[in-house]
Amino acid sequence: MREYRSLLALEKPVSIAAWSSVVGKKEGEGPLGQCFDVIEPDAHLGKQTWEQAESELQRRTVDLLLTRACVSEEEVALMLAGDLINQCTSSTYALRHLDIPYLGLFSACATFAEGLLLGTMAVSGMGLPRCAVLTSSHFSSAERQFRFPLSYGGQRTPNAQWTCTAAGAAMLTQADDPPYIVGVCPGRIRDLGTTDASNMGAAMAPAAADTVLRYLSATGTAPEDYDAIVTGDLGTVGSRLFCELTARSGVDVSGVHRDCGVMMFDSERQDTHAGGSGCGCSASIICGYFLPRLRSGALRHVLYAATGALLSPMLCQQGESIPAICHLVHLAHEI
Amino acid sequence: MREYRSLLALEKPVSIAAWSSVVGKKEGEGPLGQCFDVIEPDAHLGKQTWEQAESELQRRTVDLLLTRACVSEEEVALMLAGDLINQCTSSTYALRHLDIPYLGLFSACATFAEGLLLGTMAVSGMGLPRCAVLTSSHFSSAERQFRFPLSYGGQRTPNAQWTCTAAGAAMLTQADDPPYIVGVCPGRIRDLGTTDASNMGAAMAPAAADTVLRYLSATGTAPEDYDAIVTGDLGTVGSRLFCELTARSGVDVSGVHRDCGVMMFDSERQDTHAGGSGCGCSASIICGYFLPRLRSGALRHVLYAATGALLSPMLCQQGESIPAICHLVHLAHEI
Repeated sequence: MREYRSLLALEKPVSIAAWSSVVGKKEGEGPLGQCFDVIEPDAHLGKQTWEQAESELQRRTVDLLLTRACVSEEEVALMLAGDLINQCTSSTYALRHLDIPYLGLFSACATFAEGLLLGTMAVSGMGLPRCAVLTSSHFSSAERQFRFPLSYGGQRTPNAQWTCTAAGAAMLTQADDPPYIVGVCPGRIRDLGTTDASNMGAAMAPAAADTVLRYLSATGTAPEDYDAIVTGDLGTVGSRLFCELTARSGVDVSGVHRDCGVMMFDSERQDTHAGGSGCGCSASIICGYFLPRLRSGALRHVLYAATGALLSPMLCQQGESIPAICHLVHLAHEI
Repeated sequence: MREYRSLLALEKPVSIAAWSSVVGKKEGEGPLGQCFDVIEPDAHLGKQTWEQAESELQRRTVDLLLTRACVSEEEVALMLAGDLINQCTSSTYALRHLDIPYLGLFSACATFAEGLLLGTMAVSGMGLPRCAVLTSSHFSSAERQFRFPLSYGGQRTPNAQWTCTAAGAAMLTQADDPPYIVGVCPGRIRDLGTTDASNMGAAMAPAAADTVLRYLSATGTAPEDYDAIVTGDLGTVGSRLFCELTARSGVDVSGVHRDCGVMMFDSERQDTHAGGSGCGCSASIICGYFLPRLRSGALRHVLYAATGALLSPMLCQQGESIPAICHLVHLAHEI
């Protein structure tokens, strides 16, 4: 553990000065609907294609972030962004009109946490004044890239998750206001052999357990020290596995575990089977639900463990299993 | 410029303690053939598919890196990697057997520089003892993903570049031995409207000019202060445009400009048209050719400006132009 510890020690905590979240109609009709900044009624966002629509979703989210943070693009030293679409085009095309230095990321649905982690390095370690993090997902662009053409209308399996149409963005700074990022932990790739592209939760649960257990062990903390341990989007199936896997290591997370995939929808009423997924799922819920409560002090310590299934349709067709990863960010009201 | 400057100021320079490069047969037959650590005679690397072959290429490259650096996987605090293949599977599947925390990157052919840049943040800014950077490309996996099925046997245009089968890896540490990374500069997305997926050089040249000019301006240096300004893989077409664009800003780089895409092949003899490309092109040449000369002192200051065309076949089919980016790393023999 010695080598990994060094990552956890931030010389200065980082403040999240502003954030924004924009979601689609279905997400807006879910239990958290009123938490999000904007609910877009049109899934096309006025664009011709699903890919352009997702890009427009990111563009609106980053524009709102800059407004909320009261800064111009020139004042942002770095943008960390990525998404699920091949070549990260949702981010690239959303950001090409901005003069902000940009680094592209790919961790599937763990992208927002990877961005927060690297942004923390940039602000805390390198002294950058301001760094933005952005990600998104869109049901229609993801579904047709990873599974079936939308018009195919295939039956979805009980374990399947619903890719959220949602985006989240955050502005990291050196300011001294809550909420803070006080710890980070990059994940290791875990692959226990799951090959079912409709059961992402099972593929991701081992990665979530690995990262959360490593962080608890390295910091000498227990689940009771946190108001919530929030996994990205394990859904109902993955969440059950996550609790089982951590319990096997003698750590009972069941009292504080929340999952963004489970939180996003009223699964029965909205017919979303095992829950939500997609980069935008946990990004929008962290920004819409958790950060405001961490600012006010209603929540004081939250572990955000974003999970990503590094699913490739091409490699799945070649018989490969699905590797997964989970990056962790420790959010706090106090330093 | 004020905001961007902060990125350039490294509290401590970072040492590149070890590196490795593995290339394919055609690259091995080029002018730099003898510089690379390994030349693989079999394009399949013993695997069934091109995607698996590229993953194996990365695996051999990172194994060699660990050997060269005389460290075990437990001693590497962070791995930064990415590639051209959708969902960065070359990296994911190459690294899943290793217990190294992993962050996935996507900057197309600028990925190696993005990795060096973020690795510098991790080692210099966050005090990580050891961080590895890895990338690759493979002619066959890239060609069929981005352009045409290999069996199609289409005629290539004069402006087209040849995606290199090559990989490079580097180990960044806090040691006090050359070569060093003494400055970094993340790129901004530039898109001047190029829509020809067979003319990447034209799409990337504006991004290269933007980043190099910003770095020279921010550091108050001129091309004469460097032994070489090495662009990633602009090829012959993009290199000419790059020199023209910088000249328009009153900066004459022609005396020190080198391009990895041009260096990789004897274009006429090897029928590679405008030159080499792919993440592995500049990664293998930086590791095979430049780093040894920066260690010995034969070269003292080199700007590595890796260029990436953020080309998406899907978005090109939808009529979009090709955004590009260029990330810069300042390599030096002395601090």
